[in-house]
Amino acid sequence: MQITANNTDRKTWLKIPKETDFPIQNIPFGVFLTRDDVITIGTRIGDYAIDLGALHQLGYFEGIPLTDDIFLQDTLNDFIADGRKTWRAVRNRIAEIFDVKHEKLQKNEEHQKVILFTMNEVEMQLPVQVGDYTDFYSSEEHARNVGEMFRGADNALMPNWLHIPVAYHGRSSSIIPSGIPIRRPQGQKLPNGSDTPIFGPSRNLDFELEMAFITTAANHLGEPIPVEDAEDHIFGLVLFNDWSARDIQKWEYVPLGPFLGKNFASTISPWIVTLDALEPFRTEGPKPTTEQLPYLQSKGKKTFDIHLQVAIQPEGKKETIVSNSNFKYLYWNMSQQLAHHTVNGCSVNSGDMMGSGTISGSTKDSYGSMLELSWNGEKPLKLKEGGDRKFIQDKDTVILRGHCQDKNVRIGFGECSTKVLPSFKSK
Amino acid sequence: MQITANNTDRKTWLKIPKETDFPIQNIPFGVFLTRDDVITIGTRIGDYAIDLGALHQLGYFEGIPLTDDIFLQDTLNDFIADGRKTWRAVRNRIAEIFDVKHEKLQKNEEHQKVILFTMNEVEMQLPVQVGDYTDFYSSEEHARNVGEMFRGADNALMPNWLHIPVAYHGRSSSIIPSGIPIRRPQGQKLPNGSDTPIFGPSRNLDFELEMAFITTAANHLGEPIPVEDAEDHIFGLVLFNDWSARDIQKWEYVPLGPFLGKNFASTISPWIVTLDALEPFRTEGPKPTTEQLPYLQSKGKKTFDIHLQVAIQPEGKKETIVSNSNFKYLYWNMSQQLAHHTVNGCSVNSGDMMGSGTISGSTKDSYGSMLELSWNGEKPLKLKEGGDRKFIQDKDTVILRGHCQDKNVRIGFGECSTKVLPSFKSK
Repeated sequence: MQITANNTDRKTWLKIPKETDFPIQNIPFGVFLTRDDVITIGTRIGDYAIDLGALHQLGYFEGIPLTDDIFLQDTLNDFIADGRKTWRAVRNRIAEIFDVKHEKLQKNEEHQKVILFTMNEVEMQLPVQVGDYTDFYSSEEHARNVGEMFRGADNALMPNWLHIPVAYHGRSSSIIPSGIPIRRPQGQKLPNGSDTPIFGPSRNLDFELEMAFITTAANHLGEPIPVEDAEDHIFGLVLFNDWSARDIQKWEYVPLGPFLGKNFASTISPWIVTLDALEPFRTEGPKPTTEQLPYLQSKGKKTFDIHLQVAIQPEGKKETIVSNSNFKYLYWNMSQQLAHHTVNGCSVNSGDMMGSGTISGSTKDSYGSMLELSWNGEKPLKLKEGGDRKFIQDKDTVILRGHCQDKNVRIGFGECSTKVLPSFKSK
Repeated sequence: MQITANNTDRKTWLKIPKETDFPIQNIPFGVFLTRDDVITIGTRIGDYAIDLGALHQLGYFEGIPLTDDIFLQDTLNDFIADGRKTWRAVRNRIAEIFDVKHEKLQKNEEHQKVILFTMNEVEMQLPVQVGDYTDFYSSEEHARNVGEMFRGADNALMPNWLHIPVAYHGRSSSIIPSGIPIRRPQGQKLPNGSDTPIFGPSRNLDFELEMAFITTAANHLGEPIPVEDAEDHIFGLVLFNDWSARDIQKWEYVPLGPFLGKNFASTISPWIVTLDALEPFRTEGPKPTTEQLPYLQSKGKKTFDIHLQVAIQPEGKKETIVSNSNFKYLYWNMSQQLAHHTVNGCSVNSGDMMGSGTISGSTKDSYGSMLELSWNGEKPLKLKEGGDRKFIQDKDTVILRGHCQDKNVRIGFGECSTKVLPSFKSK
């Protein structure tokens, strides 16, 4: 099936801003609470949120095999489990419905009243129930920066790093959508020069600029996914802020990896942008510098040229952009990540989420965390307004943004925004 | 509410074996497929599986506030979310219904026909949909043994171990019930003396003797659970075999912890034994050898005296018992684990699972893994039948068992049994 939704000469009859992340060529999927307090699955064009449950009930998806309630759910998991052919058919149909050449809904104001919302009328929810969340560590620049800080430049990269898309399991329960504030985590920290930990709020609260992909039901327990088939099982991508408490993490993480330093919160952007929508922005990643085992060898353009940005906004002040990076910098691509994840037979379900790891570029203004940007606090960042930052302070809002752009079209992710509140106080 | 289900003078009108793990004082909860191919929630007395959905429909839970479909579900998650008061009321009622002094069901053969199954008529399922699974590392003997093997006796215990109930996130998707065979995982391994990994089946496949507790919905994101309240949020315990591929794990785990070396499979026993049922077997754990931070200080009998056993059975041969251990050996108890897990605000949901970590005792016949029992393959174990074992071979079945026993009653967990099949071959 062709991806006709991507046609760049297509225009919508909806009034939308010129510079939107969500032209009619995007058509992402999300879940929102409507002005009538109903949860529905929807898409977005410009600043309109579109109720797919209502569209379906009114017969606009006729001819596409969908169960009656597929869009009347709290999450996209079941729709994603329907597979790529269905996602593509639905996305193509939505593009037709809102195409200026298509008159059915355009001329039906009664239908428009129940189908269309403005973005400020809806409240975005988590788009999927994340069964399992895995976080990779696939940016060589990030791994080298962190390694250099903690082990010196000569031992920056661990011996396995160029052979394995290193990853660890994260916590699904604390994944939240953009817009939900978080509390500064508390925990054990080891003061410099001491061998006895103290308890208190994290002083080194950090963001991590990541993206994450959402999978469909991909394999049975015991059966690996070949690297060349991996993309068939990837629904789409979101922006992902993998909040980190560096001081808690540093003391706890040996030998079993990060735990409380990470699992207090992770924020995702609420609209899942499909791989189909990103198709025009395919590109090659970095060339492998070490021979890879056959199950990891991927060919062709297996990553995407996605511009990424991080801004910090102190309360009541202007924001400062502190990083500009790109998804294509990642050494390991999604196909390699999924092939590796399943090579031992591990099963992957619809709605599982896989984070990329912090995406840092090679220049200092493209690092994806405060740990790197301030070089572990040695070089505080100057904000336009609101003082310096070694790490994130209470009442700061951290905003991730991402988009693809060529001369024809801009496909974006919107924002992944989170405000930090002071630590929990027991009554 | 009193736990009347535990009365040790209670006898059932069902015919049950004398030495069963499941006397009328146990009343665990599970999910099974019946002879009519229906999935239902149930309990077990002796070798009878009891359909709680049918009991409820026939009015036996009258007076207890339960939704109509609470037992007609694929998982116990919603029932567990109803909270301790409800679990206790249901368990007490079941004990009454099957008490020899209670005649209603005892005299109603029609009802018995739809409520009672023999265990060989049913197929046990996963009792919960595990949202998040965390594995602790709470046996000091196990941590010291592993540390000694890999870092020498002087550095056996990491500096954080006595201060933190160390843990990592595991993979929920590959948790399976007892009885489901697994395939030997494949992956990257680093041959001795080489700096280049090779690919192939794990040669060091290992079990880990653990127990795991299942939580109810415990807290909101951002709000810690105090150590003294933690047990209110624990539904019950299962046996847990945290399968491990030591060669894969060794190469991959630095710096972010175990991943493919663990996530190919974890097996649980299918009946969740409630904390209420274990109440008579409360005991104190080891005394802390280091001052603990206040949020981890627990008082009183916060663990349970549960005898644990591991057997290896080669195909067509007699089994050999290779380990005898006890849950009470764990240095960190469940209350401390849950308080630690949430002290940073991490949220815990109904059906989440927390593994104890390998439970090793201080003697060589009480170690909870082949890694320790064979001392990393240096001292192969002699089986009664089927040769020696450094690690687990294809077609071996590994069986965990656990029970509590005093002069009045035996409360057991049944078996957690898994057969190992050869590695997956692609077509």
